[in-house]
Amino acid sequence: MKYTLLLLLLLPISFILYMNNTNEQTDENLIRKIYDEALENGEGYDNLRYLCKEIGGRLSGSPQAAQSVEWGYQILEMLAVDTVYKQPCMVPHWVRGEKEQARIISKHIGWEDVNICALGNSIATDKWGITAPVIEVQHLDEIAKLGKKKVQGKIIFSNKHMDDKHIDTFDSYSGCVGDRYDGAPEAAKYGAAAFILRSLGHFVDEHPHTGNMAYKDDIPKIPAGAISTLHADMLSGILSKDPDATLHLRMNCETFPDKPSANVIAEIKGSTYPDEIIMVSGHLDAWDNGEGAHDDGAGIVQSMEVLRIFKALGIQPKRTVRCVLYMNEENGTRGAKEYARVAKEKGEKCLFAIESDRGGFTPRGFTVDGTDEIVDDRLAAIKKLQPLLEPYGIHYYQKGFSGVDIQYLKDQGVACIGFIPDSQRYFDYHHTPNDTFDKVNKRELEMGAATMAALVYLLAEHGLDYKGTTR
Amino acid sequence: MKYTLLLLLLLPISFILYMNNTNEQTDENLIRKIYDEALENGEGYDNLRYLCKEIGGRLSGSPQAAQSVEWGYQILEMLAVDTVYKQPCMVPHWVRGEKEQARIISKHIGWEDVNICALGNSIATDKWGITAPVIEVQHLDEIAKLGKKKVQGKIIFSNKHMDDKHIDTFDSYSGCVGDRYDGAPEAAKYGAAAFILRSLGHFVDEHPHTGNMAYKDDIPKIPAGAISTLHADMLSGILSKDPDATLHLRMNCETFPDKPSANVIAEIKGSTYPDEIIMVSGHLDAWDNGEGAHDDGAGIVQSMEVLRIFKALGIQPKRTVRCVLYMNEENGTRGAKEYARVAKEKGEKCLFAIESDRGGFTPRGFTVDGTDEIVDDRLAAIKKLQPLLEPYGIHYYQKGFSGVDIQYLKDQGVACIGFIPDSQRYFDYHHTPNDTFDKVNKRELEMGAATMAALVYLLAEHGLDYKGTTR
Repeated sequence: MKYTLLLLLLLPISFILYMNNTNEQTDENLIRKIYDEALENGEGYDNLRYLCKEIGGRLSGSPQAAQSVEWGYQILEMLAVDTVYKQPCMVPHWVRGEKEQARIISKHIGWEDVNICALGNSIATDKWGITAPVIEVQHLDEIAKLGKKKVQGKIIFSNKHMDDKHIDTFDSYSGCVGDRYDGAPEAAKYGAAAFILRSLGHFVDEHPHTGNMAYKDDIPKIPAGAISTLHADMLSGILSKDPDATLHLRMNCETFPDKPSANVIAEIKGSTYPDEIIMVSGHLDAWDNGEGAHDDGAGIVQSMEVLRIFKALGIQPKRTVRCVLYMNEENGTRGAKEYARVAKEKGEKCLFAIESDRGGFTPRGFTVDGTDEIVDDRLAAIKKLQPLLEPYGIHYYQKGFSGVDIQYLKDQGVACIGFIPDSQRYFDYHHTPNDTFDKVNKRELEMGAATMAALVYLLAEHGLDYKGTTR
Repeated sequence: MKYTLLLLLLLPISFILYMNNTNEQTDENLIRKIYDEALENGEGYDNLRYLCKEIGGRLSGSPQAAQSVEWGYQILEMLAVDTVYKQPCMVPHWVRGEKEQARIISKHIGWEDVNICALGNSIATDKWGITAPVIEVQHLDEIAKLGKKKVQGKIIFSNKHMDDKHIDTFDSYSGCVGDRYDGAPEAAKYGAAAFILRSLGHFVDEHPHTGNMAYKDDIPKIPAGAISTLHADMLSGILSKDPDATLHLRMNCETFPDKPSANVIAEIKGSTYPDEIIMVSGHLDAWDNGEGAHDDGAGIVQSMEVLRIFKALGIQPKRTVRCVLYMNEENGTRGAKEYARVAKEKGEKCLFAIESDRGGFTPRGFTVDGTDEIVDDRLAAIKKLQPLLEPYGIHYYQKGFSGVDIQYLKDQGVACIGFIPDSQRYFDYHHTPNDTFDKVNKRELEMGAATMAALVYLLAEHGLDYKGTTR
């Protein structure tokens, strides 16, 4: 009898314990729900389809870029979050024009057409094009060594390869992107007629990779383009047999006056600390030669998906969760600069800013950047979350570059977080006609959105005071 | 003067220390060289191109399977390793025949063709096909509940979906593969005329996924096929409006007598412990409807690449390193059973067997399987290697299923290791016409080969006695 009573007393307690165990709003449970929501009901993939297929390439200043602003605004509006608005900014307006042409002419082979694209910001050739002998270099510093006498009137061809040995392909890109950006003025300094470079991709294929370049004051502007890796190999092979081979080059690009555009911003107000912001972002603009699927349609739809998941699961964050769709990352970062200027002017307190701009691949982890005073502390804070995210394959936590747009927030004391997906395939698509919707895998994209949402939830819930799991 | 002398004495010492630091054959240095070799000079991708494009689908018993045996043998021969031989085995010989046909006929919609493929081992329909009403089920146990009266003469359509919520897509597959394997006899038990199922893939598309099935003694054999996920949705939608809709089904598959075939085996003899074997493997056979690129061309070329990397870097392993190209994983595992039988007969001492059969995607880690006596110990041994492989993104170490072929070695005390790449995309391609060469990324494939080579090197060097890094 005594035991029966004891049993009757214990029964409801164990029931409560059981219920707590399965339904309690622990961080673990909520993160599981976030992934479930993304994987079962995710809308990022369908949103990306529209952005890629109905709008397409959307370089700053283009009608498509303007369309993408409206599209992003409307989707965020439909989520019924607390605030949605456009933040105006002026953007450069560079237009590629007719398809570029390049042809190798050699006494040995006759002629061969090569796939080329103008680099962003490049001037055009004259109407009939340029025809000139080609000098191949592997590094920009070879141009100075060649000197004016040899370079004058020639086309400089930088054939530097991406280093295949890096495990993170962004390290390979870092080793080459300076050549793209600074190659033309360096060649022009010694009298070159034009500058072309091997496309920045690991894979040997026929797609030329565009990307931005810049001119320098007091150095003449010369046309700058990138040829496909396949044609770079071909050109190099022809030059080794026929150093007198010439290249005929024709580009029609043009720079128009700046145009008005906008960032799109939406947020869910924090219930407890509304002035503390956790921000998530990507960039709306994309190069005109593809659909901007991985760069950065993926980051855009993932950032919007974070808010959608919060609303779908009825999560009321303690801190304000903000989604920023930046304009003009590719050729000017005017949106990012304007956002940072306004944030500073308002004295906003953004604890963490996340940017997804490395493609819609399987999520692996995060980089953390910030001023010397805070970066180690913030990395340590993020690392504490590892046990919660490990079941989802998130294992990478490193100090390092975060994102092109959010970097402007660093000096305001913001901890800038780069969202890091698997990098192996990124530079097969980056800035090429090949960066299309079909290259994105639905599950990989939605897993990324879930990972961002989980991180945002944890940061909005715990701020800088997360004590670690009790497990 | 004293100081000058001291300096002269110290100089060579510091030079030696410096040289040791950069060139010393530490495990760390050698693993870096393995990855460099794979990423810069890897031959796996070109080998895979040949296997997929020149040989193609290669189901056991087919001329293509025989060709793949010769091809594998010749590539391994060219590596000038110590031993290369074919290990004969008999294999089933099932042939798909003419392209399968299926058509939904409904008074509401008229008719619609659906993409279908016969499941491996299925019998054909009769010459003119079957036409019968369709009953949709979500689980096989619904068939028994429906009972003979309702099932008799009907086509059972299992529309069970892969569970999108699993992070590892192989967990989703595990939840469905039994329905494919056992569905037909279960339906036949209650008098069904045929069994079809929703293809085992997460993505909704038009590719039907084949795979093996089996009949049971004393239960009549009925035709079994899989329809694409897109058409499964369509059929389900039609049935919800018109339960009297019928399906016309025509399949021409046929089973012929067993044929002789072979595993291909190659090895580099160990210098110190030649009788202790570290084995790496994949399977040569692949379904006939695609090119077998991810399943399992990738595992084959990676396994061969392990030996190539050893030879290219001049690594003389202390233990014997063996590469096994299994035959008949897909529909019989006869090669695996024969390999295990011979290994047992010879009393071979295989410490670790690795199988790569989850696609040529970015490597993430390993599962370890074995008898209860050894599995925890072997997992612990593998986990100790984590600091060495972490720079290459290898972070996943779990007890769990290893591989279909190597599982037969478990009861011989072998620690069986599943090589685990990222799983998100695997079931978009698995067993479909879509499993083609272009779906494999060169870097991901070669990263996998390097990871396998690094693991094999460490196990061959240290066996079970690895003490961990000193870092």
